[in-house]
Amino acid sequence: MLVKHSVISGLGRLTSHSPSSSSSVLRRQQFLVRTLCGSQIHRPKLIRAMSSTSEADAESVLRTVTPSLDPKRHKGQAGKIAVIGGCREYTGAPYFAAISALKIGADLSHVFCTKDAAPVIKSYSPELIVHPVLEESYSISEEDQRKVQDKVLGEVDKWMERFDCLVIGPGLGRDPFLLECVSKIMLLAKKFNVPFVVDGDGLFLVTNSIDLVHRYPLAVLTPNVNEYKRLVQKVLNCEVDEQNAEDQLRTLAKQIGGVTILRKGKSDLISNGETVKSVSIYGSPRRCGGQGDILSGGVAVFWSWARQLKSDPESPAENPAILGCIAASGLLRKAASLAFTKHKRSTLTSDIIECLGESLEDICPAS
Amino acid sequence: MLVKHSVISGLGRLTSHSPSSSSSVLRRQQFLVRTLCGSQIHRPKLIRAMSSTSEADAESVLRTVTPSLDPKRHKGQAGKIAVIGGCREYTGAPYFAAISALKIGADLSHVFCTKDAAPVIKSYSPELIVHPVLEESYSISEEDQRKVQDKVLGEVDKWMERFDCLVIGPGLGRDPFLLECVSKIMLLAKKFNVPFVVDGDGLFLVTNSIDLVHRYPLAVLTPNVNEYKRLVQKVLNCEVDEQNAEDQLRTLAKQIGGVTILRKGKSDLISNGETVKSVSIYGSPRRCGGQGDILSGGVAVFWSWARQLKSDPESPAENPAILGCIAASGLLRKAASLAFTKHKRSTLTSDIIECLGESLEDICPAS
Repeated sequence: MLVKHSVISGLGRLTSHSPSSSSSVLRRQQFLVRTLCGSQIHRPKLIRAMSSTSEADAESVLRTVTPSLDPKRHKGQAGKIAVIGGCREYTGAPYFAAISALKIGADLSHVFCTKDAAPVIKSYSPELIVHPVLEESYSISEEDQRKVQDKVLGEVDKWMERFDCLVIGPGLGRDPFLLECVSKIMLLAKKFNVPFVVDGDGLFLVTNSIDLVHRYPLAVLTPNVNEYKRLVQKVLNCEVDEQNAEDQLRTLAKQIGGVTILRKGKSDLISNGETVKSVSIYGSPRRCGGQGDILSGGVAVFWSWARQLKSDPESPAENPAILGCIAASGLLRKAASLAFTKHKRSTLTSDIIECLGESLEDICPAS
Repeated sequence: MLVKHSVISGLGRLTSHSPSSSSSVLRRQQFLVRTLCGSQIHRPKLIRAMSSTSEADAESVLRTVTPSLDPKRHKGQAGKIAVIGGCREYTGAPYFAAISALKIGADLSHVFCTKDAAPVIKSYSPELIVHPVLEESYSISEEDQRKVQDKVLGEVDKWMERFDCLVIGPGLGRDPFLLECVSKIMLLAKKFNVPFVVDGDGLFLVTNSIDLVHRYPLAVLTPNVNEYKRLVQKVLNCEVDEQNAEDQLRTLAKQIGGVTILRKGKSDLISNGETVKSVSIYGSPRRCGGQGDILSGGVAVFWSWARQLKSDPESPAENPAILGCIAASGLLRKAASLAFTKHKRSTLTSDIIECLGESLEDICPAS
């Protein structure tokens, strides 16, 4: 992964690097620098956007996070995203997440799914790179499971370091063997310090095995109403408290060791265990399935971009994961609103995806 | 195409004709009349239909039944529909029914089909959740049938309670083993009091096993000309009587224990064995295959919405199944009419589906 305009002064050599230098060592160094310096993103405009009340200025964050387009840059520098999801039953969700990443501005979008799902996901769009590598229990015998798991991990391992962010969960299903493989993929991502967004059935997995994300600062969870409820019950051992929603979210994120949580709802709430931000702009009353997948793909892209922002010693750091969540939430809500003005009750998720570009351009013109 | 409020006195004999009388001479006469009068076609039969009490005010019903959109609602609350259909031979019909449900405003639309049909139906649209769970005789040995049937029912059982309405039959085919499984799915739906619309090959099944729907008030049958004829022959043991169409339909619905029947035709006739309503507005002369699938998906959505309506003690509630049928019929006829003005002879079912949103918005604006 490349850093936008070099980075923290004195660290230029470390952080501004050619694609070939993206080794795991360098990634770990970058991670260390970012973590230790508590730095990351700093722009006066951004500080204003993030200050005052908990409502974030999502449009301002979008303008701050979205990189300027530069003809000198080459393929991959605007983001390489991979979705881990898609099984015999579900193919729409991983497609929505992966195509949304591209439509927002990522350069490359991969999908790692089961062999059954791959031809279908490929048929939705020639833009995606679809890897038919995952396996479900029904297709393998018990004695082959270990061998197959090693093979699956080997296939994913070959690619892992190249990705700026993973989205784990859209259309994953709940096959126990598949989820076991995906938990190993999470460990692999953590080993290489690759950030990941967890949504859908990935949240089912994580809720039951919270150690998979505990204390991993490069994890973002994006639960909807029901997923959030299960997470609160499991981690805090209580029910959702709407009266103290912000405090409860902060406590939950802290309890999971500082992961970032984007709680989807009428207002989206975002916390990393310290700060809490909300995004309430725009939005649509249409609740067709699939909008969460757009959001998870969007978080992956904006978060990757936020991590590349050059540091400004005069500004206190804001957490890139939170910025990524704010930007993705704001953009989805604007695109959903725009799609609704065009299609009204018949608005579908594909219609919203078609409005991502226009919405981003409206907030943050490319030139 | 029928015109809503059209009258030209004194032209009855010229313009009132049976379908078989549409000779070229008559067609030219009609054209002359339309041109000279600046109007369209007016059939005394229609005038009677429009003036009699049985003609429903479909637009008013659409406005009553369609829920207002509320940002506080979450995914699923505007309807979760499942289509049971789609086999090796037929894939278009279940897609049309399922996508129409979404385009009208349902939040989630599932399809339960055979393994062969699933990848194809999935490829039509990432918006649908397609379950490859049904099996046909050719793919299983006789001794495995019981085991396979249990598995199929297990897969459907997991989901059944979540659905607001099923559509049983589009593209189901007539494989005996498959139909046997579907009859068990009907029993399962009845056990959970899940409403279902029966169309296409589902009507073939029901006509031969009328007990499957007898006395189940949450069943709507939507026969076309031939399906209605077979139903009348089987249940009433006589031929269709066009002179007493309304009475015969009422008798048929009563005989099947109060199910609701939507008899598709030039005018759609609807009865639950007590009241009879007709819908004659709009419509299109194009008879491309697939329009019945739009209707069945539409009935499922509008019926689900009508069931959610609070009863008003001052105005006794109309049967929700009848309201759902009236609304779906009215909307399909308007969308078909609109699509025909755009595409004329080349109007296809997909074109009509694309007009569902605009048509509903025209009658019942979302905001």
